[in-house]
Amino acid sequence: MIERRSLAALFLALPVAAQAQGADPLPSWREGPRKRALLDFVAAVTREGSGFVPPAERIAVFDNDGTLWVEQPAYPQLVFILDRIRTLAPQNPAWQQDAVFRAAMAGDLRGAMAGGHEGLMRLAGAAMAGNTPEAFQQIAADWLRMARHPKWNRTYPALVYQPMLEVLRFLRASGFTNFIVSGGGVEFVRAFAEETYGIPPQHVVGSSFALKVTEDAGRLTLLREPRVDFIDDGPGKPIGIARHIGRRPIAAFGNSDSDFEMLRYTMEGSGQRFGMIIRHDDAEREFAYDRESHVGRLARALDAAPALGWQVVSMREDWARVFV
Amino acid sequence: MIERRSLAALFLALPVAAQAQGADPLPSWREGPRKRALLDFVAAVTREGSGFVPPAERIAVFDNDGTLWVEQPAYPQLVFILDRIRTLAPQNPAWQQDAVFRAAMAGDLRGAMAGGHEGLMRLAGAAMAGNTPEAFQQIAADWLRMARHPKWNRTYPALVYQPMLEVLRFLRASGFTNFIVSGGGVEFVRAFAEETYGIPPQHVVGSSFALKVTEDAGRLTLLREPRVDFIDDGPGKPIGIARHIGRRPIAAFGNSDSDFEMLRYTMEGSGQRFGMIIRHDDAEREFAYDRESHVGRLARALDAAPALGWQVVSMREDWARVFV
Repeated sequence: MIERRSLAALFLALPVAAQAQGADPLPSWREGPRKRALLDFVAAVTREGSGFVPPAERIAVFDNDGTLWVEQPAYPQLVFILDRIRTLAPQNPAWQQDAVFRAAMAGDLRGAMAGGHEGLMRLAGAAMAGNTPEAFQQIAADWLRMARHPKWNRTYPALVYQPMLEVLRFLRASGFTNFIVSGGGVEFVRAFAEETYGIPPQHVVGSSFALKVTEDAGRLTLLREPRVDFIDDGPGKPIGIARHIGRRPIAAFGNSDSDFEMLRYTMEGSGQRFGMIIRHDDAEREFAYDRESHVGRLARALDAAPALGWQVVSMREDWARVFV
Repeated sequence: MIERRSLAALFLALPVAAQAQGADPLPSWREGPRKRALLDFVAAVTREGSGFVPPAERIAVFDNDGTLWVEQPAYPQLVFILDRIRTLAPQNPAWQQDAVFRAAMAGDLRGAMAGGHEGLMRLAGAAMAGNTPEAFQQIAADWLRMARHPKWNRTYPALVYQPMLEVLRFLRASGFTNFIVSGGGVEFVRAFAEETYGIPPQHVVGSSFALKVTEDAGRLTLLREPRVDFIDDGPGKPIGIARHIGRRPIAAFGNSDSDFEMLRYTMEGSGQRFGMIIRHDDAEREFAYDRESHVGRLARALDAAPALGWQVVSMREDWARVFV
């Protein structure tokens, strides 16, 4: 028993050992101030000394859309909702009477969004509620295996950012616990986070529908109701963090104004802190957007970053490679 | 680097290795069907074979009051609330006009509870809200270091059950992740769970007040409002589990009817499952109560246990030792 476990431990220790021998934990990051800042921060909190942070307090939080995977030309979950509305349409003829649903069924993103927040919530409820968390996660997982991004014809989980996977791995190997704190639906993100990012369901914080306890064939059953329970976005992110994690993170990674409060909450704690914003400025390899974008708008956080000591990553300059 | 980490890994592997060599992981449990059932379950899910469960799915959930620590003659958090009301009374003269508050200030538990759920929520709000999660946890931690249980004159965190600490440790050493799923306030339980049980804040699920984002001296601040956001009790427990953990547990430990739904949810999953109810039948060493008790009432779950395959622990017969 000792021998087998020691071998496993040796294997787990290899990445750290390799670093100690000079291997680069962030090979897809070009040398420069952003990479240097991250390496310095991790060194400072892990080595004995005034900046040392015990492993239990090494909490890192990551936004998902636009920070860990692609969010243009539309949030993958929104594409999922429209696909799902189309799938369910034959059983819901009444939807034909509703302009927002008609647009959704036609795959007309702009038309589907014309109903504003209220219209989107109705679409989301119709597409995603009325099932158990387990059944929904299966539906989402099936879609994620099948659906293809219009630009690259690859599945969405294949369009995660290699440099960020390296950050997740590097932090984990350095004793951090990584959490996703996403505006997306918690069960949608859980459907792929473990396989894709190595982040288990209990470390995913997200938006949610209300759950109701019912009975089904003599078994206690949880039903997802078409009623929003919590929006984990903007100011909701620090609330989700306090509620779910119960400890202020020491590192936060985001890409848009909806991560502003999460970055503030993280950075305004005492001691060593690290905040990073991924700026999408690479039209060739990915997308270029910030202040004017409807998806992943980045203005306020960009303006605030220099004074607040947040690192702004240029995808074009700082990343040698974008996708896995 | 490799060498030092391997030594650490060897050390971590020791408890498991010791078990393999015949040491008892549950020395405070008397030999008998309950201890045997727990050992058999853990052996079945950890050894290669048809019952094997991958470590990521080894989720165990524990009620807190009456399952991990003493809950008689009153829930410790209720004693805390009354103490806190007394502390805050001088700044709140209006409380003198309110019968429920007058009873609380007099330390009259029965009178304080006479206002029912509504009265209790008013007391709880007045005693516990209006501060940040961090400030509240500090207040709770200070109280937990100071307050003494009337029967033993020991602090409450000293009145945790040694046999259950052994279960927590044994499961952890067997690759499980332990969660507390408590009807108590999430920040109250977090104030001692890490030090007392080795369970970090992110693995504590509990009831909560609503949080509000505000500004204080230029810093983003979370304020706990005197408005209940979620009651993690009874049918709320499976909801809290689904919301927070996102994976159905394979083992659940409780002691009262408020754990009924959590045990059902756990046990009604497929594959190997383990459910255990601690029955307080030891008036000499602890307390004896079940069907007629106002605190920790146990009737429905007791009646259901045999048919549903839940283990009912007799504290008197099954535990060689009660407290640490």
